[in-house]
Amino acid sequence: MIEQNPDYILDRPKAGLIDWSSRFENPDAPLYIEVGSGKGQFIINQAKKHPDVNFVAIEIQEAAIGMILRKQLEEQLPNLQLFLGNGEALTDYFAENSVSKVFLNFSDPWPKTKHEKRRLTYKSFLDIYKTILQPNKGIEFKTDNQSLYNYSVQSFNNYGMHFDFVSVNLHDSKMAEDNIMTEYEEKFSAKGQPIYALYAHFSA
Amino acid sequence: MIEQNPDYILDRPKAGLIDWSSRFENPDAPLYIEVGSGKGQFIINQAKKHPDVNFVAIEIQEAAIGMILRKQLEEQLPNLQLFLGNGEALTDYFAENSVSKVFLNFSDPWPKTKHEKRRLTYKSFLDIYKTILQPNKGIEFKTDNQSLYNYSVQSFNNYGMHFDFVSVNLHDSKMAEDNIMTEYEEKFSAKGQPIYALYAHFSA
Repeated sequence: MIEQNPDYILDRPKAGLIDWSSRFENPDAPLYIEVGSGKGQFIINQAKKHPDVNFVAIEIQEAAIGMILRKQLEEQLPNLQLFLGNGEALTDYFAENSVSKVFLNFSDPWPKTKHEKRRLTYKSFLDIYKTILQPNKGIEFKTDNQSLYNYSVQSFNNYGMHFDFVSVNLHDSKMAEDNIMTEYEEKFSAKGQPIYALYAHFSA
Repeated sequence: MIEQNPDYILDRPKAGLIDWSSRFENPDAPLYIEVGSGKGQFIINQAKKHPDVNFVAIEIQEAAIGMILRKQLEEQLPNLQLFLGNGEALTDYFAENSVSKVFLNFSDPWPKTKHEKRRLTYKSFLDIYKTILQPNKGIEFKTDNQSLYNYSVQSFNNYGMHFDFVSVNLHDSKMAEDNIMTEYEEKFSAKGQPIYALYAHFSA
């Protein structure tokens, strides 16, 4: 199915900058990307809610992005593209200063210290996001995982990022109304557990 | 009682730098201060646990600091001094670069936006702490209040402070073992509610 829909999804392309604008109906819209889109509920609903923004769903798991593609074949959203590949390689495919927002939702916490470098909020990933983001643009990060949240708040701060919004209870905050939930977030928060959020940008 | 114990407590003194060293048995020990000591369980136990550190309990409520004084008259800790007065005036009484740590424990959240300037983590208070703290020294802040925590994390970050420790569940963190609880913290956490913590320093 993936091979049959090259207009909607790029499947582990060879390294090389992609002309993302040409893949969207409106080439001039700002570009938001989600690193680790899972089954895609968040990015699909973002794309429906914000037709004036272009979105790229990035996911390394073929089975998961297959589910997003199936939804996209039904929806045919002109402002959503899918990318099957690795977040570590983003600078190979996204030009410098080309992205307006990065979403990180319920990323793998990689709890063991020896796996710190795999966390999507580790400084080497921040280097990548900073490179592809436009000046003064940033990240919207949310998680239910206390350890990943603690780690990420410190990592973003120590990197020199400027915090725009902090919440240890996103669903009871001023951002709750506009919040779009992931599949996981719906299940988890239904149990009464808090969702932690941090929005921050890189200073120019 | 307060007037009768001038060796242990300063009662709203006239503005003027205080020779804190001379008020302690060991004048060379580092100086830690708590802004808003309440009934004093935290600072009393800190002083007992760390005889190599000098502590000042600062409290604006006379009834509360009276309770600390009563305990101190029993304990006679040579490394604990009391100060009845206002956190806004600290630069009147503490010399620049004279303090090694500031504790903020369960400060009044002042939830209304119009009272933001009264929060002990508002930027004008950070100016004060930065002035009296030695270079690269900082604040240990804890609270149960979600709004105050969110606010303070952003305030410290936006001020340019460097985060050393972040936890949305202090009692389930690497710092739990050394944590000294306030009276309020004991009651609150016994209900299973999390304690939020942030330790951060000012860069030189």
